[in-house]
Amino acid sequence: MAEALTFSLREIVSELGGEAVGESAQRLTGVATIESAGPTQLAFLANLKYRAQLERTRAGAVILGPDERDATPLPRIVTPNPYAYYARAVALFNPPPPVKAGRHPTAQVDPEAIVAASAEIGPYAVVGHGARIGERTSIGATCVIGANVRIGDDTRLYPRVTIYNDCTIGDRTILHSGVVIGADGFGMAPDQGRWVKIPQVGAVRIGDDVEVGANTTIDRGALDDTVIEDGCKLDNQIQIGHNCVVGEHTVIAGCVGIAGSARIGKRCRIGGAAGISGHLEICDNVTISAMTLVTKSIKKPGVYTSALPMMPHDEWLRWAVHARRDAKGEKS
Amino acid sequence: MAEALTFSLREIVSELGGEAVGESAQRLTGVATIESAGPTQLAFLANLKYRAQLERTRAGAVILGPDERDATPLPRIVTPNPYAYYARAVALFNPPPPVKAGRHPTAQVDPEAIVAASAEIGPYAVVGHGARIGERTSIGATCVIGANVRIGDDTRLYPRVTIYNDCTIGDRTILHSGVVIGADGFGMAPDQGRWVKIPQVGAVRIGDDVEVGANTTIDRGALDDTVIEDGCKLDNQIQIGHNCVVGEHTVIAGCVGIAGSARIGKRCRIGGAAGISGHLEICDNVTISAMTLVTKSIKKPGVYTSALPMMPHDEWLRWAVHARRDAKGEKS
Amino acid sequence: MAEALTFSLREIVSELGGEAVGESAQRLTGVATIESAGPTQLAFLANLKYRAQLERTRAGAVILGPDERDATPLPRIVTPNPYAYYARAVALFNPPPPVKAGRHPTAQVDPEAIVAASAEIGPYAVVGHGARIGERTSIGATCVIGANVRIGDDTRLYPRVTIYNDCTIGDRTILHSGVVIGADGFGMAPDQGRWVKIPQVGAVRIGDDVEVGANTTIDRGALDDTVIEDGCKLDNQIQIGHNCVVGEHTVIAGCVGIAGSARIGKRCRIGGAAGISGHLEICDNVTISAMTLVTKSIKKPGVYTSALPMMPHDEWLRWAVHARRDAKGEKS
Repeated sequence: MAEALTFSLREIVSELGGEAVGESAQRLTGVATIESAGPTQLAFLANLKYRAQLERTRAGAVILGPDERDATPLPRIVTPNPYAYYARAVALFNPPPPVKAGRHPTAQVDPEAIVAASAEIGPYAVVGHGARIGERTSIGATCVIGANVRIGDDTRLYPRVTIYNDCTIGDRTILHSGVVIGADGFGMAPDQGRWVKIPQVGAVRIGDDVEVGANTTIDRGALDDTVIEDGCKLDNQIQIGHNCVVGEHTVIAGCVGIAGSARIGKRCRIGGAAGISGHLEICDNVTISAMTLVTKSIKKPGVYTSALPMMPHDEWLRWAVHARRDAKGEKS
Repeated sequence: MAEALTFSLREIVSELGGEAVGESAQRLTGVATIESAGPTQLAFLANLKYRAQLERTRAGAVILGPDERDATPLPRIVTPNPYAYYARAVALFNPPPPVKAGRHPTAQVDPEAIVAASAEIGPYAVVGHGARIGERTSIGATCVIGANVRIGDDTRLYPRVTIYNDCTIGDRTILHSGVVIGADGFGMAPDQGRWVKIPQVGAVRIGDDVEVGANTTIDRGALDDTVIEDGCKLDNQIQIGHNCVVGEHTVIAGCVGIAGSARIGKRCRIGGAAGISGHLEICDNVTISAMTLVTKSIKKPGVYTSALPMMPHDEWLRWAVHARRDAKGEKS
Repeated sequence: MAEALTFSLREIVSELGGEAVGESAQRLTGVATIESAGPTQLAFLANLKYRAQLERTRAGAVILGPDERDATPLPRIVTPNPYAYYARAVALFNPPPPVKAGRHPTAQVDPEAIVAASAEIGPYAVVGHGARIGERTSIGATCVIGANVRIGDDTRLYPRVTIYNDCTIGDRTILHSGVVIGADGFGMAPDQGRWVKIPQVGAVRIGDDVEVGANTTIDRGALDDTVIEDGCKLDNQIQIGHNCVVGEHTVIAGCVGIAGSARIGKRCRIGGAAGISGHLEICDNVTISAMTLVTKSIKKPGVYTSALPMMPHDEWLRWAVHARRDAKGEKS
């Protein structure tokens, strides 16, 4: 493992901003939660519900907000957004492994592909005809990049990502292992008791600063493209159907399924395992609760929910009797 | 990219049938939606709700049904099933990339495997002992085909598909990237507070003309086989448990989970993210709504549903109070 | 295919214990269900609901419990746990393919990795710097093992598994194809309308005797580790968020999603497609029904449920009217 990085409080503030309060000769070795931090670690207080822990923490220093400035004698960094500061501090102590420019000798790069000299192509990766790979972009081991795919700069594909032909990925985007971009959308026409496949000839366009979690799938469009705008963050095991548009800075938690041609607004938050039906529109700034099924367009920002509360099974049985009675139109 | 194909209206009709109405010297370059089609594109009117757009469309020609025959002066193709015709027209303009007969030099094909000379084995693919790959079948890059697997003719495995030993795939079937066929079913016996694994010694049999979407998993049977019959279409991120049987021409939308030993009839339509419990039977021609949980056998064709309607969160909170009251057996 | 193994009743009992009752010269060739077993096959009666089939079965011999000892004249094995005995009998007839010690010539093993001489590294597998692979462990084709990963003895990775750097896998553990261990957890901080990524610097620790199904993903921790304890069995397509802890011998069915920092107790059973919210605790011995959403901690063992019963669609429409009325606070 690489030598661990250390920083003094002043060095952190000079890199990341904020105000250092209190003296400290202690060099810090990393970031930890306020409960578990030791004397060489930097803790953070992002949620006031943990404020009481400020008295008990063994941390060497603490990141906190202006209102907590005087709540501890510990060396501290004061910043308006301690949680975002924590994110940046973790990145400071744990820089991503550097991209190693060059192609592994086993990589199969089509002679008609254009790969930046500063890009890294891992072992057993396959890069197709006419593909373009940008500066300092890393393509992990065994990734398969289809013909005419374009990938921007400073983007990272972890091992075992597939991108079908003609799709586009922006700059500073992260695709985790198992991701499949651009497989055929689920389109077919009924014809005399059988299904005729509708060839999917659109592509997928993914913007800048997007992250896509492990084993998530984003299908190519039928005629037009499927679009994931800048700054979207998608968790693992998500399915996005053909011709969806996901607006910028929207976050989608794990296991969500979005059917074809849905349009999701900007800055939405979609809870885990939610389902969104096809051909509907969700406006900007909507929050969908976990496991909620959205079957109609949403035109007003706010929080929407449809999950039944969990109950002990015997209570649930009683509830189900009522539900069935309502369904049958019987008097209760 | 390949030279784009162009067709005249007459050429299309001579390939795909239907009646060409109206003269046109215009060569068509592709298919588009009725809203977006330009003067060299063929549009289609499959849903009468878009009929008004027929007046505004800039399309060079339109596919429509017999009742709309005279609804436009545009050059047109009249056919009883415009949507299926659209599917075939897209295929005409966008033929799949041809299969390149032969094995990539990096493919690892067991000497005891039998691979048709017309089949294509991509880079870094692995084909096991005793496997058979049919005529004009394409095995994508980094696919892993287990021992004694049989794959029919004209089948396409996109990159990064795994097929465990002894499974069978039919003709003209498509498996998308990330698909796993024949992993162990989830079988174990409780024994003194621990779980004893039940080896899964059945296989998976997939018929002809099946499509399986990206990252879908179909488990092998415990003793007998798991079976996907001819003509089934499965979307992405689906899980099919051991010993399930899915009847022919059934379609299953994304994120559906089907537990072990369920038997799904023919021509069913299973909505996205639905769940089907194990050891039950669903008869032919059943439609299951999105996110519905099926816990009992269904013996009558029809539509079945169990999702709670989505509500603004404050209404949902009020609803949940009622639900809990019913569950506790309290008066409302 | 290998020569099939055969056993006499006495030989089975001498390997697996139990009492052989009734004489038989017949050598048995395998295990089958009581309905389908033929005269050279061993059937089992694990569920008394199938007791009537004992009279009709054509099986050569039967595994059954002490109470059924005299319920058939067939040669039989009497054991207190026929289902677990069945599991072991299947394993006896179907031993897993032996691990072939050695590295495939195409495997890319970092010179600083430590791989046991008895381990098998498949074609196109990649093993990173500082990784350790234990005795008799098998790494399937195209697996990618990150830097400093530790994998114990007698563990089997099927083809196409990714393990990110610094994760740990125990002994006798099975990871199926498509599994991704240690991808980044879903952590980001809002900052001026954008999301700042929180680097995920914890790892994943998986214990001994664990099984993880195809395409399941287990994310690495943000600061501390995500932990799957000994004896857990996870089905396919499961998502486990960062910093979760799953207690020993817990089983999780397919398509379950568990959000970050949830703590699941020991010997729990989580039904298919259930969802578990983040930052909550479920005590030992809890059963969660299929498709149930757990939004609060559970402190008492038992069965918990939240799914709406499935209904014919027209009944559901009537039910939905009631639900909406309750939600609006209207009188019914």
